[in-house]
Amino acid sequence: MSDLPSPKFDAPQLLRHHGQTVAAYFATLRKRYAGAPARLMESIEYSLMAGGKRLRPALVLESWRGCGGRSGGDGSLSRSALAAAAAIELIHTFSLVHDDLPAMDDDDLRRGRPTNHKVFGEAMAILAGDAMVTMAFEILASDADPAVVPALVRELAAASGPEGMIGGQVLDMEGENVQLALEQLRHLHRMKTGALLTASCRLGAIAAGAAGEVLQAMTDFGGHLGLAFQIVDDLLDVTSTPEQLGKATKKDAGKGKNTYPSLQGIEVSRREAADQLAAATKAIETLGPAAEPLRTLARFVVQREV
Amino acid sequence: MSDLPSPKFDAPQLLRHHGQTVAAYFATLRKRYAGAPARLMESIEYSLMAGGKRLRPALVLESWRGCGGRSGGDGSLSRSALAAAAAIELIHTFSLVHDDLPAMDDDDLRRGRPTNHKVFGEAMAILAGDAMVTMAFEILASDADPAVVPALVRELAAASGPEGMIGGQVLDMEGENVQLALEQLRHLHRMKTGALLTASCRLGAIAAGAAGEVLQAMTDFGGHLGLAFQIVDDLLDVTSTPEQLGKATKKDAGKGKNTYPSLQGIEVSRREAADQLAAATKAIETLGPAAEPLRTLARFVVQREV
Repeated sequence: MSDLPSPKFDAPQLLRHHGQTVAAYFATLRKRYAGAPARLMESIEYSLMAGGKRLRPALVLESWRGCGGRSGGDGSLSRSALAAAAAIELIHTFSLVHDDLPAMDDDDLRRGRPTNHKVFGEAMAILAGDAMVTMAFEILASDADPAVVPALVRELAAASGPEGMIGGQVLDMEGENVQLALEQLRHLHRMKTGALLTASCRLGAIAAGAAGEVLQAMTDFGGHLGLAFQIVDDLLDVTSTPEQLGKATKKDAGKGKNTYPSLQGIEVSRREAADQLAAATKAIETLGPAAEPLRTLARFVVQREV
Repeated sequence: MSDLPSPKFDAPQLLRHHGQTVAAYFATLRKRYAGAPARLMESIEYSLMAGGKRLRPALVLESWRGCGGRSGGDGSLSRSALAAAAAIELIHTFSLVHDDLPAMDDDDLRRGRPTNHKVFGEAMAILAGDAMVTMAFEILASDADPAVVPALVRELAAASGPEGMIGGQVLDMEGENVQLALEQLRHLHRMKTGALLTASCRLGAIAAGAAGEVLQAMTDFGGHLGLAFQIVDDLLDVTSTPEQLGKATKKDAGKGKNTYPSLQGIEVSRREAADQLAAATKAIETLGPAAEPLRTLARFVVQREV
């Protein structure tokens, strides 16, 4: 399954194909970490295999293709692109497990199932999250081409850390029950969700050997896509049911969180999401037909129902 | 301060010197992460600057010297060794912050001060710990010689992860109120504390370009030292007061934890610590006088009062 899907696939087909690729990779972790306590690996697998959209790995692999990454003679993906796809999904999953903890968002439901700490207990959920971070970096350092390991590790670590996702979570927490200006909300989301989505695109590009203008184009694409993603996420929290979303809804308002709809209304938010989609598409127009699946994924992000 | 101390220093002098080197490095983090939320960086600094022994950075830097690492013309350490020293202390500190959480060991006191979550709240302590992990890998990937980055990242990640420190914490948790055999206790500690101490020695060796027999000697040294360290830690928990140790004592027994003294008595434990020290020293006898500070540190680990 470690090959590229047809560029003509629609977004659900692309996501399914890349999702299977990354799931097959995750299925090898139990053997790879044979010396680890069984219950820890169960807790990690429980969350890794919970069936998310796998949007970030798909972005890594399609950014790799869009930047000229070529499969081997047997059609297989480069080890660097595959390692980056698995690593970013590990980081994303870790962040969900820790976000759901009682001390954080205190959520009982995630992707339609009990959250990790509800099943494995709080201590194990903390440790499973911690372990996923170390595994992400171990996989990158072991499996990617050594020539790109420093850049890949730097990219993933920076996007996850104090100036990226984790910093954004702190701002999110500090912003509860405080009225933020729109520019502050954008800043928060550029860190909290934007950094990892942008990194998905940049990791794929770096694995393909991209630099200069091409890497900048992927950075811009990821930035606009990240903002669009968060606006749509906020909209879905207002307009969906828990059954559709697989997690609690309407919780942003209940927690006094700032959202795009709460700051500028539903209609303006929808328009801004569409504008960000247009800007994302424009950023990669020079990449030609190899980047068509990236455009398909970007449209999906903005137009998805759940 | 980024130079090597006199090899004739005693252990407190060596630790003070290397401690100042790593503290000076940590003092640059606020500027390096200027885009991070201030409160997050405060929480991270609170724990990083709490004045631990800095044993792991000292082991990195002395292993580097023992394996032939040479200072630059200005006496400065290699960037790789310094980055590895800072990275391993970040990982060690993260593990303390998460270990102290209410869902884990629920400790109020660490190094004589309130624990991180007592000061900054549980959510911030979780996020600060998470951030320290990403920072460790970012520093390694950015500051070390690119030629050794893959090996350094792999080493640190493996020692921290499911088959290393985090796996050991899970075993420790699972072993509470269960009678372990001595071999199971040794296995637990090889993971929980031994992995990171061994990695300290190996990181320094790798930064110095060591391989083959020399790297193996450092691995053996670190393994024996790690076991000795844990036995002494268990002994100190029984024989010290909280004032001496800067944290709660006698808590192992209260929690139904297995320890060397509880399984084999105080005298046999003391003898085993001495045997491990002898084995550690023997492992690096071929390294000659450049490894003398490593022997000094090993003796300190076993003979320390607190």
